[in-house]
Amino acid sequence: MAFKIGLLGYGTVGTGTAEIILDPTGRNNLLQDIEIARVGVRSFDKPRLPELPPGVLTTDLEAIVTDPEIEIVVELLGGLEPSRSLILKAIDHGKHIVTANKAVIARHGEEIYNAANKAGVYVLLEAAVGGGIPVIKPLKQSLGVNRIQTVIGIINGTTNYILTQMTQEGADFSEVLAEAQKLGYAEADPTADVDGYDAADKIAILAAIAFNGRIKREDIPCEGIRQINATDISYADDLGFVIKLLAIAKANSNNDSLQIRVHPTLVSKDHPLANVNGVYNAILVEGDPLGQVMLFGPGAGKGATASAVVSDIVNIVGILQASNIKEKLDPLLRCSHEHFKQLTPIADINSRFYARFLCHDVSGVIGHLGTSFANHNVSLESVVQIGFRNDLAEIVVVTHDVQEGNFHQALEEIKSLESIDSIPSILRVL
Amino acid sequence: MAFKIGLLGYGTVGTGTAEIILDPTGRNNLLQDIEIARVGVRSFDKPRLPELPPGVLTTDLEAIVTDPEIEIVVELLGGLEPSRSLILKAIDHGKHIVTANKAVIARHGEEIYNAANKAGVYVLLEAAVGGGIPVIKPLKQSLGVNRIQTVIGIINGTTNYILTQMTQEGADFSEVLAEAQKLGYAEADPTADVDGYDAADKIAILAAIAFNGRIKREDIPCEGIRQINATDISYADDLGFVIKLLAIAKANSNNDSLQIRVHPTLVSKDHPLANVNGVYNAILVEGDPLGQVMLFGPGAGKGATASAVVSDIVNIVGILQASNIKEKLDPLLRCSHEHFKQLTPIADINSRFYARFLCHDVSGVIGHLGTSFANHNVSLESVVQIGFRNDLAEIVVVTHDVQEGNFHQALEEIKSLESIDSIPSILRVL
Repeated sequence: MAFKIGLLGYGTVGTGTAEIILDPTGRNNLLQDIEIARVGVRSFDKPRLPELPPGVLTTDLEAIVTDPEIEIVVELLGGLEPSRSLILKAIDHGKHIVTANKAVIARHGEEIYNAANKAGVYVLLEAAVGGGIPVIKPLKQSLGVNRIQTVIGIINGTTNYILTQMTQEGADFSEVLAEAQKLGYAEADPTADVDGYDAADKIAILAAIAFNGRIKREDIPCEGIRQINATDISYADDLGFVIKLLAIAKANSNNDSLQIRVHPTLVSKDHPLANVNGVYNAILVEGDPLGQVMLFGPGAGKGATASAVVSDIVNIVGILQASNIKEKLDPLLRCSHEHFKQLTPIADINSRFYARFLCHDVSGVIGHLGTSFANHNVSLESVVQIGFRNDLAEIVVVTHDVQEGNFHQALEEIKSLESIDSIPSILRVL
Repeated sequence: MAFKIGLLGYGTVGTGTAEIILDPTGRNNLLQDIEIARVGVRSFDKPRLPELPPGVLTTDLEAIVTDPEIEIVVELLGGLEPSRSLILKAIDHGKHIVTANKAVIARHGEEIYNAANKAGVYVLLEAAVGGGIPVIKPLKQSLGVNRIQTVIGIINGTTNYILTQMTQEGADFSEVLAEAQKLGYAEADPTADVDGYDAADKIAILAAIAFNGRIKREDIPCEGIRQINATDISYADDLGFVIKLLAIAKANSNNDSLQIRVHPTLVSKDHPLANVNGVYNAILVEGDPLGQVMLFGPGAGKGATASAVVSDIVNIVGILQASNIKEKLDPLLRCSHEHFKQLTPIADINSRFYARFLCHDVSGVIGHLGTSFANHNVSLESVVQIGFRNDLAEIVVVTHDVQEGNFHQALEEIKSLESIDSIPSILRVL
């Protein structure tokens, strides 16, 4: 018996999905039971491969989500609307959902999952985070028996490509961005990637699963990589670090709240995430009693993303084959969140910091810096005078774990010191 | 409703499993529905924590696998017997099985899975390979929609610890083994680990899932790390490699057969597996269209292995909660292999090789080596005279991909050359 699916969208990921399903030899046997019954596109202008049988392509997306023959709707449109409305309508018509859309889940997950639980359908989203890396299902099905302490991800391929190129070539952000746009690794409007919003959508999804509670996406502080320059990459290298855009979610030890944030971060070269380069992604999960697990792979691209989409389709088909009567959803695969997690304001979070200062008076300034930091309970790990720049001494400070609010108060005091010319860079350290 | 489980064995992994289940706060909610009803031990001599309620501990293992109240039997005895018989009897009594026992599955998988499919029960074994790393379920549920080309694993923590220590300390095998035994990282009888048999069991299991066919464990060629010495580790380092014990399974491109083998291997330092050190494990999977995915984490240890065991228990509980009536098994989670895969004899496999020669006549010997290799179609990537040892010149050769049989024929010819004193090391290169 063939399971009929409908695709919304036939762009890069949609055609990649069709390529796998239409060429099942040597793959999981269940693929042979899947039929692409309808594919919705916005217009017929662009001919796309693989070619579909006559009548499968349609511009009537509503007809797909209401088609009584279709059991699974695969949403690959991206963006918030009409994706949200089509997903909700499909759920309303009893369809299971597979989506690669991190934005719609990060922002409208509550509405979508409440509807899905009510209708008794699955909403699977392996492709929404980490491209082809199995991470959503392992978090739900394998890692969740642990008390998860931390989820740290390099989960935006564009920024990781840019930072890797900057590190390897000593180039500045704007040159590498332009090159990445030429190569198709960055969009014409790179905002969602380089300002960290895409990574924030994804860590919201991962944290919700790992810590078993809903996340308010708009509460996640988010800092991108536009201000990263070759100077700091080189100084970080001297100190034994590489700079990565990390999305971090941590359980607070004393209560049920979480810390979540996205920012460029100095990562020690011997940390497993330090060697994740180019468009690769990786997600590091720490839990008790498990310890550290890292899942690494291609974070984007047609084939990798399609692999994740098709794995979700096949999982639903497997469940439907095993159990024809619609019963309760598998509690490991459905969303079971009933409350929103409280997020700690960033000023109350403890971090290590890297700060670079340009100073006039080298002999006295280290003492002044030390005093100002001590005044605000900021304990220093190292203070290094790295060199000179336009007659100004360049001093780099790395702190121990300090409260972010205290650190910024110390900086305010330091800015008023006569010996300080400017503070060109402030970055966090893992 | 509580699901009653029975544990066979209450050693390191068994007590770790109980620790997770008896302390469910902050973990997956399903843990609260699990009751450890019976725990079978060989004797009551050793008191073990966590302590169990009176009547739970028993030395009558048969009574557990036939107990009508128990739905899941968790086999943590290890070894072939009585594990095999108890698993078969439990299946016969309609119990689902969770096991951490790679040996029994690698050698008796056909019998066990045939019985399980007939009885309509699951046999899950996430803990059998890679400790706490989610790898079995991701292969079954996520990666299988790809055409898998390669599975390469560092899947024995003991040998990876020994090789890492040898690399970092420049020490020889026997010293590090003794140290590892003192620290509890190696058994008193280290044969199964250092001779590669444990890794062979595990790659047999991974290959069966990844390539969808049964594997004859006894057909897997297996070479351990006893002959690895500080000299070759240091020369490999000079050439840009580290030495790792790899378990490799590859699809042959032209037919349905596979290559599977376990041997120490030179791995380029920029390869993702090169940075997997100490007791960590990693499994690299390559597939089409996915590309490369690597799963990394603790390959052994109480907490990590228990995490994998409990994740399997929870998966079965999730399925049972969703579907109370016993219907068909989910085809993604049951074993669907119907035939044995043919394995290519090692002489017909192509590999790159590293060989170290001790020679008398430096001026002529490179020419002689070159001629002998060329006579047998062995193409060389590099020939380097590394140094002198006891008046003998030490020459290291790295080949391109060559047929293993041809390479050994060339070596036979080279051994008969007057200028060659001996060939102390032959290793494969990834």
